[in-house]
Amino acid sequence: MKEWMKNVRTVEPYVPGEQPKDANVIKLNTNENPYPPSDKVLNAKLDLEKLRIYPDPEVSALVEELAKYHGLNNDQVFVGVGSDDVLAMAFLTFFNSEKPIFFPDITYSFYDVWADLYRIPYVTKALDDGFNIKPEDYKEANGGVVFPNPNAPTCVYLPIDKVREILDNNRDVVVIVDEAYVDYAPESALSLIDEYDNLLVVRTFSKSRSMAGMRIGYAMGNPELIKALNAVKFSFNSYTMNYSSIVLGVESVRDDAYFKEMIQKVKNTREWFCKELTRLGFSYPETHTNFVFASHKSVPAKAIFEAAKENHIYVRYFNKPRIDNYLRITIGTDEQMKTLVEFLEKFIDNYS
Amino acid sequence: MKEWMKNVRTVEPYVPGEQPKDANVIKLNTNENPYPPSDKVLNAKLDLEKLRIYPDPEVSALVEELAKYHGLNNDQVFVGVGSDDVLAMAFLTFFNSEKPIFFPDITYSFYDVWADLYRIPYVTKALDDGFNIKPEDYKEANGGVVFPNPNAPTCVYLPIDKVREILDNNRDVVVIVDEAYVDYAPESALSLIDEYDNLLVVRTFSKSRSMAGMRIGYAMGNPELIKALNAVKFSFNSYTMNYSSIVLGVESVRDDAYFKEMIQKVKNTREWFCKELTRLGFSYPETHTNFVFASHKSVPAKAIFEAAKENHIYVRYFNKPRIDNYLRITIGTDEQMKTLVEFLEKFIDNYS
Repeated sequence: MKEWMKNVRTVEPYVPGEQPKDANVIKLNTNENPYPPSDKVLNAKLDLEKLRIYPDPEVSALVEELAKYHGLNNDQVFVGVGSDDVLAMAFLTFFNSEKPIFFPDITYSFYDVWADLYRIPYVTKALDDGFNIKPEDYKEANGGVVFPNPNAPTCVYLPIDKVREILDNNRDVVVIVDEAYVDYAPESALSLIDEYDNLLVVRTFSKSRSMAGMRIGYAMGNPELIKALNAVKFSFNSYTMNYSSIVLGVESVRDDAYFKEMIQKVKNTREWFCKELTRLGFSYPETHTNFVFASHKSVPAKAIFEAAKENHIYVRYFNKPRIDNYLRITIGTDEQMKTLVEFLEKFIDNYS
Repeated sequence: MKEWMKNVRTVEPYVPGEQPKDANVIKLNTNENPYPPSDKVLNAKLDLEKLRIYPDPEVSALVEELAKYHGLNNDQVFVGVGSDDVLAMAFLTFFNSEKPIFFPDITYSFYDVWADLYRIPYVTKALDDGFNIKPEDYKEANGGVVFPNPNAPTCVYLPIDKVREILDNNRDVVVIVDEAYVDYAPESALSLIDEYDNLLVVRTFSKSRSMAGMRIGYAMGNPELIKALNAVKFSFNSYTMNYSSIVLGVESVRDDAYFKEMIQKVKNTREWFCKELTRLGFSYPETHTNFVFASHKSVPAKAIFEAAKENHIYVRYFNKPRIDNYLRITIGTDEQMKTLVEFLEKFIDNYS
């Protein structure tokens, strides 16, 4: 080994879902929205001459728009390059205890990657057999808590009274609730940020807002949390949000009618698709996200995953303990889901 | 202090130059390009419907374009959200020794911020009285070396044989040459990356490419360095470069004629402006950047800085040891520089 390589940080990186370059595949593997962003976004005027100057380092326009939308003050909102950026910054900012942080054993697979990257000790807490988070597991002393709600890739929602139970038992550490999918779920933890000054709620524009390609995420919490996050952000990169993210992000927030309409459309498709899955012999926890986490009674998930891919339908398969017989299937358009159902029907029938 | 605040990472963030919201100021304080990006960028077709899907996590289109432009292989190029993002990732990836890293005492003021953020020990090495880096200071055992060439805010260029001297004395650590301003200078260290597998050369689109608002930076080095950087990047955020950065970045690289023309324009203005500065009683090291670092024989820099600002001309002033009587002045258009010269002439005449 070369001498200089001894000081290289060695990490096991997160592996994102495949992004096939063939535009003809039915892409149900990374929980993107099947519908385009709002017309306000599509028709926004970008003045590219402005690219010669730096963007606003405070990202004021977007922070103000989001604060207004959620009924918060500007100093309660932090924005970043997708919720991954926001979460990575939050790990670096808040998880500096020698005690381990806690998160579920089956959850967003970036959490252990960030913990390893920043050398943060962690302990995972097993979900129950129905893939529910057990609040009683989060009572011991720890260095912080993070979980998605609804959880991914399990699609299971933790009712707000149980989120509150976790918060009540963790007043001395920062608790991060990662709400990437909350727009498809009954209730957000946002209503609790005034009551719990150690609660950070994280959101993304990549799912319900149809803007994965723009990389926008944000966090909401009390001003002290946001101030600490901003100090770390300004110690990393002053200008993370580029000109187009700021302009287009603002336009997205301004079209609430379209936003809600597209959420409802996905929910309607989800309802139909879940019934079809039942009919085909799949079981799945109740989903409160834009995807389903499903297992077939007789056909192995891996076989379905591979055959679907051969048929140009991409879903997500995790070769991991407890979930290696499940598929994570994004809710696409009605047409896409019909094509998938037809494929599944045929494949399951012929599988021996 | 609240209990949860005890685990918050406390940092002293980098303070970027002011970004005044008033468009009528003459903005010579953050080394932006006075000219817009290439017409190829301005006329690029952005298909915003594509925002619903994630961007290419490998950023292949931009990596390939840059590799082709510089005559490298794709595995020798890493891209990020501005060179700050690239440098921050490089600090985290390569500077993990218990020995201190070395950088100049007067240099880009983000280096000590990143070192503090990541708890990397560091030692600064004093520039000589002409603000030159002294290669002999970089011979002792260390955990890595980083310096800008040309240096900022001093505008001084280190000839390539001296860069080589530093490299020859540092074969066992990673050496980062931060070439944000190299397009205005005689020679890049890029020609040395085949010879020195521990050399990382970092560039930005924010200065000579007129794209500060888009946040694009990149690093070039041998494939092992790039692979390590990518592993850390994929452990932080899979999708850092958004759709518009990728599309517009590629277009910029494709218009080399315009790029070179704008560099020459800035150099011509610089030549004229430097003569005017001499005439007005300023001294300054020879500049190989798009800015000048100047000190007046009798009028304090701070007084000029404040009066200029009152007159809607923004330059940069650093209240720091050794440089607190200097102004860093970006080269703007001929017209902007004439307005500045007229202001300076009057202000200096009337200063008592």
